[in-house]
Amino acid sequence: MRAILKIGGSVLTDKTEEETLSDRFDDVIETVADADRDGLILVHGAGSFGHPHAARHELGEGGVEGAYETHEAVARLNGLVVGALNEHGADAVPVHPLSCAWRGDTFGFETLPTQTLREEGFLPVLHGDVVAESGSGVSVLSGDEIAVELARLHGDAADVGMCASAGGVLDEEGNRLEHVSSLEEVTEFGGEGVDVTGGISGKVESLLSLPSGGRVFGADELEEYLGGEAVGTLVRR
Amino acid sequence: MRAILKIGGSVLTDKTEEETLSDRFDDVIETVADADRDGLILVHGAGSFGHPHAARHELGEGGVEGAYETHEAVARLNGLVVGALNEHGADAVPVHPLSCAWRGDTFGFETLPTQTLREEGFLPVLHGDVVAESGSGVSVLSGDEIAVELARLHGDAADVGMCASAGGVLDEEGNRLEHVSSLEEVTEFGGEGVDVTGGISGKVESLLSLPSGGRVFGADELEEYLGGEAVGTLVRR
Repeated sequence: MRAILKIGGSVLTDKTEEETLSDRFDDVIETVADADRDGLILVHGAGSFGHPHAARHELGEGGVEGAYETHEAVARLNGLVVGALNEHGADAVPVHPLSCAWRGDTFGFETLPTQTLREEGFLPVLHGDVVAESGSGVSVLSGDEIAVELARLHGDAADVGMCASAGGVLDEEGNRLEHVSSLEEVTEFGGEGVDVTGGISGKVESLLSLPSGGRVFGADELEEYLGGEAVGTLVRR
Repeated sequence: MRAILKIGGSVLTDKTEEETLSDRFDDVIETVADADRDGLILVHGAGSFGHPHAARHELGEGGVEGAYETHEAVARLNGLVVGALNEHGADAVPVHPLSCAWRGDTFGFETLPTQTLREEGFLPVLHGDVVAESGSGVSVLSGDEIAVELARLHGDAADVGMCASAGGVLDEEGNRLEHVSSLEEVTEFGGEGVDVTGGISGKVESLLSLPSGGRVFGADELEEYLGGEAVGTLVRR
């Protein structure tokens, strides 16, 4: 039984074509729907539903213009994910961070609706989103941040799995590492190429902040991961 | 400047036809968009987007089946409302109660995302919805309840306006009352017909629970209400 599964936007969407699903979308959805989903919370990235919109309006720096457009784009992807999961009987329901997270003096994320839905047998499906930020309009909250935040509030034993197109944390020759225990291990070999491989250093930093860490693996290993197997790269201090 | 405006599902939709907007939908939206919206929060009912779905699955009693279908129906209405408001430049954004409210040992509603959005110049648009309830799957949270809850957390001076197809609180001859200060005044003359007039007794009970009370008025008075005029029936202890 897994606690929190983040599926990257680059796994679910074709990042080269705006608002286009990837070829493996259906397979990934079916794998999640057919797995032991009891107690699972799903988070997905925005991929080509959201990133182009946020970039057009420079929402990385905060703003008001484009906030609705960006939210609607990723909410459309969320609707496709939730709808497809429910075609496989998954009892999935959408949870939108714009409705339950905010940045004021501190970052806040109300997770009780998500937790209650999960306890009632639903599969809550969250996503990277824009959220209100005091003084800046909105700012971007990534799926990785959401996954880690849910894990933090979930308690000490929460394992987090990140299914990413990079397939894991790779060394400079492209070989996957079994275990990463510090950010230096990534930046040492990653250099400027790190972000090109899907923001892996950000994922590593996020997972290292959790006592129980997490795993980064590829879409072809999703079924094994959900089945309880130790796949991909373990990221833990 | 008004604080919280609830627009009834029967004002925005044709309750006799499933998922059909009312003839006055466009006028109502334009009136809200053209008003002084600074600091306003909008809440709308489900009307024929949601009530038929909830009734089919008997969600009044709680449940899991039909939860997604009902949420999606009212979220579609919310999308139409937000989209139409933004065609008039309203900077509206959706806030879904399924994502931010829950019923556990007590009822909870996280309003900081809504408040932060409002402070940043957005027009948050909430709606009647299903919310997770411990032990019951989901249950229905009405737009009226949301409006009153927002007012309660908003502070003492929050005025609440309820735009309803009944046009106000009526006496037994159908004449509108200027002021109602107790529920008995409604039930005395309302009898069994009360709920037929759009759940007016529920609205009165909700508004009486607020120190500052609120007003119930018709769609033809919406512009005056948003302009600061004292229209409709004042409901206050």
